Amino acid sequence: MTHPPLGEMLVTLRDTTPLVHCMTNYVAMNSTANLLLATGASPAMLHAPEEVAEFTAIAGALSINIGTLSTPWAESMQLAARTAKETGTPWVLDPVAVGATAFRQQVCTALLAHRPNVIRANASEVMALTGLASQGRGVDATTTTEDAAQAAIKLAQQQCCIVAMTGETDFITNGTHHYRLTGGHALMPRVTTLGCGLSALVAGFLAANQANPLSATLAALACFSIAGSRAGQQASGPGSFQVALLDALYALTPDDLSSLSQLETLHAV
Amino acid sequence: MTHPPLGEMLVTLRDTTPLVHCMTNYVAMNSTANLLLATGASPAMLHAPEEVAEFTAIAGALSINIGTLSTPWAESMQLAARTAKETGTPWVLDPVAVGATAFRQQVCTALLAHRPNVIRANASEVMALTGLASQGRGVDATTTTEDAAQAAIKLAQQQCCIVAMTGETDFITNGTHHYRLTGGHALMPRVTTLGCGLSALVAGFLAANQANPLSATLAALACFSIAGSRAGQQASGPGSFQVALLDALYALTPDDLSSLSQLETLHAV
Amino acid sequence: MTHPPLGEMLVTLRDTTPLVHCMTNYVAMNSTANLLLATGASPAMLHAPEEVAEFTAIAGALSINIGTLSTPWAESMQLAARTAKETGTPWVLDPVAVGATAFRQQVCTALLAHRPNVIRANASEVMALTGLASQGRGVDATTTTEDAAQAAIKLAQQQCCIVAMTGETDFITNGTHHYRLTGGHALMPRVTTLGCGLSALVAGFLAANQANPLSATLAALACFSIAGSRAGQQASGPGSFQVALLDALYALTPDDLSSLSQLETLHAV
Repeated sequence: MTHPPLGEMLVTLRDTTPLVHCMTNYVAMNSTANLLLATGASPAMLHAPEEVAEFTAIAGALSINIGTLSTPWAESMQLAARTAKETGTPWVLDPVAVGATAFRQQVCTALLAHRPNVIRANASEVMALTGLASQGRGVDATTTTEDAAQAAIKLAQQQCCIVAMTGETDFITNGTHHYRLTGGHALMPRVTTLGCGLSALVAGFLAANQANPLSATLAALACFSIAGSRAGQQASGPGSFQVALLDALYALTPDDLSSLSQLETLHAV
Repeated sequence: MTHPPLGEMLVTLRDTTPLVHCMTNYVAMNSTANLLLATGASPAMLHAPEEVAEFTAIAGALSINIGTLSTPWAESMQLAARTAKETGTPWVLDPVAVGATAFRQQVCTALLAHRPNVIRANASEVMALTGLASQGRGVDATTTTEDAAQAAIKLAQQQCCIVAMTGETDFITNGTHHYRLTGGHALMPRVTTLGCGLSALVAGFLAANQANPLSATLAALACFSIAGSRAGQQASGPGSFQVALLDALYALTPDDLSSLSQLETLHAV
Repeated sequence: MTHPPLGEMLVTLRDTTPLVHCMTNYVAMNSTANLLLATGASPAMLHAPEEVAEFTAIAGALSINIGTLSTPWAESMQLAARTAKETGTPWVLDPVAVGATAFRQQVCTALLAHRPNVIRANASEVMALTGLASQGRGVDATTTTEDAAQAAIKLAQQQCCIVAMTGETDFITNGTHHYRLTGGHALMPRVTTLGCGLSALVAGFLAANQANPLSATLAALACFSIAGSRAGQQASGPGSFQVALLDALYALTPDDLSSLSQLETLHAV
């Protein structure tokens, strides 16, 4: 079994501290900024139509998350995504609860026209994006990751992008190559917006490693997997887990990523 | 002294993990989501007029908090509250700093027309809602809970709802039955938006226990009282208190609620 | 070497718990509120044009931070700043990433017309405000504090205000008297929005000590310097650092401020 060069991805991230333009939901903003800073990227949150294109053009990557969506923000997201495509800036779409309302489906359809480099979603969101029946009632994944793997592959092929579908087991595919990644900890779903922050971290790794988007995506997910496992060993609940996760991301080494421990496994499927 | 069946309320909350539609202020969003997740409910934050009614209809309960109010949000809150009433979805009003500006008074008056199931407020907010003189300069309670008990009863009778007035001692009334609850810790006012999160937690308990709204409300407050006491015993300041509070909410058992410890007391008055 | 009476500033802050009207970015709101509460001030976040002037007039101070700027918020900020000037309420400007886009420059220029009492910024923001070439790509300071000291003095003289330029070494000037303050910890830039929170804390100290704005500003920065040093000694990463910082701010004594330890130095230059 050969691993993608995940350790190298982290070295490049920290050497370049890429500026990640985050257009994310209000719940996730602070947490996302701290997750990026702890790992080694540089977050910037802004959304005004007067400046969003100007800023996307100077950012290393763009992360769009539709959590607390509104029409003004959707318009700014369109502008940013279009700019990202024009300037060759990699961008990530996090289609939070896309299956829950018609509004979210419309906004995501419009954003997909600007071809995200990566879609980071849970299983029910992936199912909703592919038009398959979804049980999603909101932000929770109610479809098992296993059941949704075919949907993820189909979505990656439809959109010519990488799909990083996260859950108890992560499934990552570019439509041709597929990986499963285990690890993390049962407390992770008890801390809000970790998935949102992971989407932005994927953007950070893409910015730092533009030639290897699949390895960059895997590296971001592996960071969460390993740091999540370690934080879970120290935590006595979701409060201490969140603190320990930031500390663990900060302490991660390239070697940690290159040689995943017993707790985490990554394999091609 | 017989206690309401608070332990059963927590069992039901965790068995059903109710979806709580939170329309809350920007300061409180992340903290509120984490407080709900730690205790056992499932938060979702969204506010766009395009989707708010659609979402309220599928949520188990709605929590409206006017902290960082604006006219667009006030209109969405109206829409959500009206939908909640039409669909029988229980909803909670948290009238942050209602006495501080005319704008807040107007918005709260309009929201009260949709008859919240519970009003969760501090003493000066309760006084302001009843039209009594308030000393409130903002988010702080400057009236003692004791002095405001009559105002709470009056408000509950006027609005045909439960009033959960929190402070050093909580006072809970449905206009007929009244309870006082002690516990918590002196550090709680030093952590921002705990009250906002408590309002959303009340909504979660209401969703899970629709037949027993008064016991559901008491259970939410008792969770904070007990977990707050325990967190305070571990904390060395407001930072470690917030972490310990989330861990303590996560660790709470139904037995903890059914048999309040020496630190906390609940009695009918 | 005689110190300004920093300890007295903290005594007054805690005795009066001044109400600080914070108009700050979405990322910083929760963190800022907690930093103020831990130290001893009382935060309130609101931004609606319907109430912002009414509230500024009753607040002890105003803090404006343009992090997640938009046109509606810029208009409310104008209204609040104008009201502050009319009512004699001290106010602080935090010009986040002002050099990054034309929109930010325009908004800051308009706000400066209302003459902030203090500008709290990093070196690249100070450079941008003085019209000097800035390397700022966003929220990071890429100019050394030393290099920017002359720009800070020039800005203070131009705007007739205090400039508190923070970084590895802080430089504080009212255009005539200048101070350098060391301390803090290398983990501070790894936690998001600490600078934003510091700006609001400066506002709190100004509110409590209107007769001594320079000492008040120094006291706020000294709080962060000392508490940051102490938190860094306990922390194992940015997660535990943030927790420890809140605890350390809460535990600060006036004596701590009056006699800065070996780790921190303050001297006039």
